[in-house]
Amino acid sequence: MARWEPNARERLVRAAIDLFAEQGYDATTVTGIAERAGLTKTTFFRHFPDKREVLFAGQELHSRTLAEAVAAAPAQATPLEAVAAALDALAATFTEDRRDFAARLLAVIAANDELRERAAFKHDQLAAAIAGALRERGTPGPAAGLAAELGVRAFDDAFARWSDPSVARTLTDLAREALDELRAALAALG
Amino acid sequence: MARWEPNARERLVRAAIDLFAEQGYDATTVTGIAERAGLTKTTFFRHFPDKREVLFAGQELHSRTLAEAVAAAPAQATPLEAVAAALDALAATFTEDRRDFAARLLAVIAANDELRERAAFKHDQLAAAIAGALRERGTPGPAAGLAAELGVRAFDDAFARWSDPSVARTLTDLAREALDELRAALAALG
Repeated sequence: MARWEPNARERLVRAAIDLFAEQGYDATTVTGIAERAGLTKTTFFRHFPDKREVLFAGQELHSRTLAEAVAAAPAQATPLEAVAAALDALAATFTEDRRDFAARLLAVIAANDELRERAAFKHDQLAAAIAGALRERGTPGPAAGLAAELGVRAFDDAFARWSDPSVARTLTDLAREALDELRAALAALG
Repeated sequence: MARWEPNARERLVRAAIDLFAEQGYDATTVTGIAERAGLTKTTFFRHFPDKREVLFAGQELHSRTLAEAVAAAPAQATPLEAVAAALDALAATFTEDRRDFAARLLAVIAANDELRERAAFKHDQLAAAIAGALRERGTPGPAAGLAAELGVRAFDDAFARWSDPSVARTLTDLAREALDELRAALAALG
């Protein structure tokens, strides 16, 4: 059946965000999301376990992108240089046409405690992916954990700035700047 | 009615942890928790909105303890010195008789994704409380956020170690050590 449902996953995500923004998260059902996307509930459940997970669809792919980029960084790269390479790799997957989507996603999450909890968990999962890849490169655990946290924090900051349509810069550029800011803060604390 | 229910809150927390450990989190009901504690469901709902929040009962008090200790630190204290004072203040509230409780709490949370999400959110809320208090002292935002993250991370690490009954050290001592380790990791990254 898959050939009858091109981009089903993407369509479901966009339909969900539209409905969450229009009616609120609580009032939106899986059936409503599937209908808006022109798909069936069965198709929905082939892609997501529930309506909440639609908003965090990228978590596994993002984790993999980050971990692979850390692993692929030159052997002599410092932990923070490897993290910077990971942010570059992840930011490159966010094309300009996803910017309006980013703003709506953040607004929906900010308005709902359950979603904020889930977002905090995603943050930790992404950091764990980076930290694991850094440890594989020989970075000691505490430094790996801290560098990973810095990376995800920088990405979150950059993503929030990028979601503002008046900010005429790329996500890559904003992520680099955010990481530099955190690095400076780290030096100031040390 | 309150005089008939001494330590109701504490009793509910202990009953909940016992039942979560015995029967699993999902199989435990608010009614079951109230019965085990020898209290009514009405009393339960006077203290907690649902069974999940029983496990995160300390969040607001902990946030306040941390923020107040940061505010009370000497004016010349560095951000990390103020954070260390906050950890001392929070650790002092965990008496030795709560150690077995800590182990069971962590086991219940680790076994359930929903609880891990909630724990990630609590982590962020505690960090936000510290960061806010640091900004009040004039610490710039990024440095305040990072120092706060270090503090909560150190506390979480220490709490996990402390929950092991074979570790014959105080939570205060473990939290100071964990913060020192993270500070060394930070210097290594910088």
